[in-house]
Amino acid sequence: MPLAIQADDVRAAAQRIQPLARHTPVLTSDAFNSEAGASVFFKCENLQRGGAFKIRGASNLILSLPKDALARGIVTYSSGNHAQAVAIASRFVGAKATIVMPEDAPRAKMEATRSHGPTIVTYNRQTESREAIAARVIKETGGTVVPPFDHPMIMAGQGTAAMELLEETGALDAVITPVGGGGLISGTATIAKALDARIRVFAAEPEGANDTYLSFQSGERVTVANPDTIADGLRSPRPGEFTFPVVREKVERIVLVSDREIRETVKFLLLHLKILVEPSGAVPAAAVLFRKLPPGIRTIGVVLSGGNIDFEELVKY
Amino acid sequence: MPLAIQADDVRAAAQRIQPLARHTPVLTSDAFNSEAGASVFFKCENLQRGGAFKIRGASNLILSLPKDALARGIVTYSSGNHAQAVAIASRFVGAKATIVMPEDAPRAKMEATRSHGPTIVTYNRQTESREAIAARVIKETGGTVVPPFDHPMIMAGQGTAAMELLEETGALDAVITPVGGGGLISGTATIAKALDARIRVFAAEPEGANDTYLSFQSGERVTVANPDTIADGLRSPRPGEFTFPVVREKVERIVLVSDREIRETVKFLLLHLKILVEPSGAVPAAAVLFRKLPPGIRTIGVVLSGGNIDFEELVKY
Repeated sequence: MPLAIQADDVRAAAQRIQPLARHTPVLTSDAFNSEAGASVFFKCENLQRGGAFKIRGASNLILSLPKDALARGIVTYSSGNHAQAVAIASRFVGAKATIVMPEDAPRAKMEATRSHGPTIVTYNRQTESREAIAARVIKETGGTVVPPFDHPMIMAGQGTAAMELLEETGALDAVITPVGGGGLISGTATIAKALDARIRVFAAEPEGANDTYLSFQSGERVTVANPDTIADGLRSPRPGEFTFPVVREKVERIVLVSDREIRETVKFLLLHLKILVEPSGAVPAAAVLFRKLPPGIRTIGVVLSGGNIDFEELVKY
Repeated sequence: MPLAIQADDVRAAAQRIQPLARHTPVLTSDAFNSEAGASVFFKCENLQRGGAFKIRGASNLILSLPKDALARGIVTYSSGNHAQAVAIASRFVGAKATIVMPEDAPRAKMEATRSHGPTIVTYNRQTESREAIAARVIKETGGTVVPPFDHPMIMAGQGTAAMELLEETGALDAVITPVGGGGLISGTATIAKALDARIRVFAAEPEGANDTYLSFQSGERVTVANPDTIADGLRSPRPGEFTFPVVREKVERIVLVSDREIRETVKFLLLHLKILVEPSGAVPAAAVLFRKLPPGIRTIGVVLSGGNIDFEELVKY
């Protein structure tokens, strides 16, 4: 079966999402480079509209929907960043959004999502299925589901961050992103390999939510029940049907990091780069900072995927 | 007497400092605009090399020194950000730097300065004069003093931040920076008025270190003994001899903000813009957020001057 997306889907997305997604800055840090032993280029999607890269995929799908679909509304399920992105893009096109969120989602993410005006339905992560609740809403309203990662338009949209990064930096030895369900890494790997076949592509995952790591080792999609990590955006229990084949074909290695390493990296990025990155967003930076990549990589692009973290959480770091 | 700098000095500085100063990003925030009732463009000098705009002025002066002066070394006095900038620029040109710092300077600022290899001499802010200690070092070494603000080359260098900002945004109704000794605001006002004679220029100052406010009211330089504010970068006791005439001629108003307003603004910028700004750097943003400017300003540029704050301090906010 052919892969779900090609590089031209990412290029088309870059055009389509311009009204909604910001061209985020690329930052460097002498202090980080010195610790990591490499020259690192950070694509700051924490500075993106909605505080995360998710607006790229969500707007790519929503801006491509016909008017009659928009009139029936948008439905999604998300721990937070995708929810906020869908709320922003739905309001932009004038569509009603219904969002299914875990009741223990970070307060900042839930409040920020709510501020854009959608209907929010909460559920218990341990006892209920977000897909089932979303399915019920779709049945009632006829709305269109905008899934958080497992959709070609979402994957293509997420790839635009790495496309901007590599256009700005020129050729790099490697690129790394976090992996949850695989939307960001599949889009990234697709465009990165198309721009430069020699670039090495890595994904970083929390030890406590290592479903993609296990799937990558076994060659088949593995489910991790109730993933446990502070990286709340990467708790999806298994890789996607569309995303995983791209990961398997184009990613060199899945690198695992601990919650302690994630916390230290959040603090390092805050104090040395002066930017707030949420735990999920810091995962690939942690992989680089703690030198978990194979040797010989001198230049690397890191997608800092988001910055939505509660102050009360941050002060414990 | 003519003013100490003209717009062409700022333009020349922009060329000279290119090897050392970064072109920092300009960020916007829907949440901030909504609170402030204006469209705000943040020039992020907290993302500058050394974590503050100070590298602009320091490198403008240091890169213009002849080799024999560099061989005798560089001397300066600073609460932190200027110290770090001088250390970075001195190392870049291979000159020995001696830096006189208050013993209670923020730990992050002192450690960051130390990491660039200068000799650091500490003093007690209440009982000793930094200028006197610096004068003794200069007498001993024959080194060149790089003052923190009151020098035409420093003033011109600091103006390059606003120059980049206005080149990127185009015409704005107003621009605002913090004011300590007046280096940043004098450079800013000079270039801003030259680029657009109609732009309104404001400076923001902490209530507890209101020497420029008092000087502006009286028309003469007033000294405030032992200024007391969390904005540690703005505790200079009186405006400069070269900076004040520029402030008096080109600035419309000095706006005062309280330490509480500064803390709330640091937190707002952290949680909504996802960037770490130190108290001094947040002062002009506080003036805008708490609507202290005259009505009728729809677009405004804000120079966020620095991001060097201890984590232990931040968590108290």
